[in-house]
Amino acid sequence: MAGAVSAGIKYSPGQRLDLGVLLSTRNCVTAGVFTSNKVKAAPVLLSRERLKNGSARAVVMNSGCANACTGKQGMADALEMTDLVANQIGAKKDDVLVASTGIIGTMLPMERIRAAIPSIRFSAAGGHDLALAIMTTDRVPKETAVKADGFTIGGMMKGSGMIHPNMATLLGFLTTDAVVETGFLRQALKKAVDGSFNMLSIDGDTSTNDTVIMMANGVAGGEVIRTGSGKARLFQQALEKVCVYLTKEAARDGEGATKLIEVKVSGALNLEDARLMARTMVSSALVKTAVYGNDPNWGRLLAAAGYSGAALEESKTELYIGDTCVVKGGVATDFDEKQVVNHLKDKEVIFHLDLHLGRAEATAWGCDMTEEYVKINAEYTT
Amino acid sequence: MAGAVSAGIKYSPGQRLDLGVLLSTRNCVTAGVFTSNKVKAAPVLLSRERLKNGSARAVVMNSGCANACTGKQGMADALEMTDLVANQIGAKKDDVLVASTGIIGTMLPMERIRAAIPSIRFSAAGGHDLALAIMTTDRVPKETAVKADGFTIGGMMKGSGMIHPNMATLLGFLTTDAVVETGFLRQALKKAVDGSFNMLSIDGDTSTNDTVIMMANGVAGGEVIRTGSGKARLFQQALEKVCVYLTKEAARDGEGATKLIEVKVSGALNLEDARLMARTMVSSALVKTAVYGNDPNWGRLLAAAGYSGAALEESKTELYIGDTCVVKGGVATDFDEKQVVNHLKDKEVIFHLDLHLGRAEATAWGCDMTEEYVKINAEYTT
Repeated sequence: MAGAVSAGIKYSPGQRLDLGVLLSTRNCVTAGVFTSNKVKAAPVLLSRERLKNGSARAVVMNSGCANACTGKQGMADALEMTDLVANQIGAKKDDVLVASTGIIGTMLPMERIRAAIPSIRFSAAGGHDLALAIMTTDRVPKETAVKADGFTIGGMMKGSGMIHPNMATLLGFLTTDAVVETGFLRQALKKAVDGSFNMLSIDGDTSTNDTVIMMANGVAGGEVIRTGSGKARLFQQALEKVCVYLTKEAARDGEGATKLIEVKVSGALNLEDARLMARTMVSSALVKTAVYGNDPNWGRLLAAAGYSGAALEESKTELYIGDTCVVKGGVATDFDEKQVVNHLKDKEVIFHLDLHLGRAEATAWGCDMTEEYVKINAEYTT
Repeated sequence: MAGAVSAGIKYSPGQRLDLGVLLSTRNCVTAGVFTSNKVKAAPVLLSRERLKNGSARAVVMNSGCANACTGKQGMADALEMTDLVANQIGAKKDDVLVASTGIIGTMLPMERIRAAIPSIRFSAAGGHDLALAIMTTDRVPKETAVKADGFTIGGMMKGSGMIHPNMATLLGFLTTDAVVETGFLRQALKKAVDGSFNMLSIDGDTSTNDTVIMMANGVAGGEVIRTGSGKARLFQQALEKVCVYLTKEAARDGEGATKLIEVKVSGALNLEDARLMARTMVSSALVKTAVYGNDPNWGRLLAAAGYSGAALEESKTELYIGDTCVVKGGVATDFDEKQVVNHLKDKEVIFHLDLHLGRAEATAWGCDMTEEYVKINAEYTT
């Protein structure tokens, strides 16, 4: 169940949804992944602490204010938000988590939040409102659900800016009715996030508020899914499908983006190298602007691969733009430039670099960089 | 001595200077610092090899084509460029170095270069033409000279794009008439580059062609400057002054830039941390766009400091924008926003983060990010 209201956190009350609650009728086996930024927002610190026991009933969340760099008052406000929700739904306050996104360094307008929380109405269909309430510069809400054998996994997220791999992403919330063991859920979530949200970069900036929370209420019944059990692999696959879908949606809706960029690196020595290189290539400002300009400037891709720090032998590299091989043995092929430019004009641009060094591979997602990105971020608080 | 011609490497012949030679009448004690990118251009590989003996007489350089990702043909072309210059000036070919900048992945138009090299005319005043010839998207040439006790150090560089710390920068050439010992010159150059060019970021992309070469012809005479000798410190200071000047000029002239950004980090645990954090902050797309928009969004600075990987305790941080303290003890002060916005409107924007953890400090330079940056790089090859 979920619900959201317009509390007026950044804009005036009534203008847009900006506060909501994701809620279960009973306690859920719950796992979370949080930002690796050393500057952590109060809600991150609080939710991480409360998830040590692997259990939660609700998450209260808001956009418009990150409640980061807000010191003791910020922590008091985060605590109060969870207290207010706990009172309203009749839960223990330790079972309520919190997540915030928005401007760093401003205090939450607690009077408005106190007034708004009691007015939240919950329903099974409230998830869509909640997905709207956590949007900042997102243009569209991002939601999906996957049905597997006997259970369902649903997810929503917000993306847009201050997004860079090596962490969780901004805010992502996943639910399932599967019966799962706590340790397994933690591992499964970590693994899924590593291959999806952590392979996403919009602008190279790691947020102070990144939070991914997954809650499993167990109402589907059946055997408990744990490491090694029959449905463990199925669960992992379904979870990864949801996470990758949300990641691609976030990349497509990156601030100012006109295109989704997918970079696959194969033939790497190991998985770490493959991931590092794919993320570095998709994060390159020069790659992103070239894609925006439909410019078949493949040298920028090889340059980014070269400075990623991952192993590479220039004379073995093979690079594809879409289906066209543009580099073989480290030098340009006699490729059809028109064909490459046509692919660059697509809404999904795919690069594939084969290193011919080993067997590891990884995929990263991002978006092009446009004048609009600059405009959005030059005008954010003012 | 130096000279440059218009060979027509990227544009038509006669349109702009794009090929030149920096030349000494005798062999110089010479040191170089090159890109850390694993994809290295042919001229980088050749010059690095030839500098193993610490001696050189000339550097031939061009813009318009990076001669990178060009395989065996690229190396043959780099060799031929140095052969042609060696023949013309009567030097051994091993004493001629080469540096290129421009588009990656295209072959040098060797017929035009063969025709152009013999037409280069050398003069003591030719340095300015040479500084023009190595420009790509640079708007202005970058040159300077510093006179110290008994010797002079001069320098020129090109900057603009594909510039990111942890390497040398694009192309930088330094000369001095001082009498210096080879090992000392190598150390002095490395140290100066670490505190200047390596603290510069325009767009986070490390080039395949970064090259800084310093030549000392010794005509000033006097005692040989070596580690520990009387003038060693003076030489180091003069060299650092030249390098920092060129670095700031390059930052100011970053692609599409309207402002220079200087980030100082003090109170760090060690120099490595201070440098890492300052570079990360000055490289942040969100910091760069906020500066462009005169937006006092200080949270982005703390967020970047936090994800840099360097040690930080949020509750100890103190942040200044210009002379205004905006954060103390990790939370916002009651600062005068108008005063901060006024500083952000300056052509030089200065941030200072005091970590209050130790005694190390470092400064990094960069520029704001504008719509113009996107425009330039979406249209580079086409």
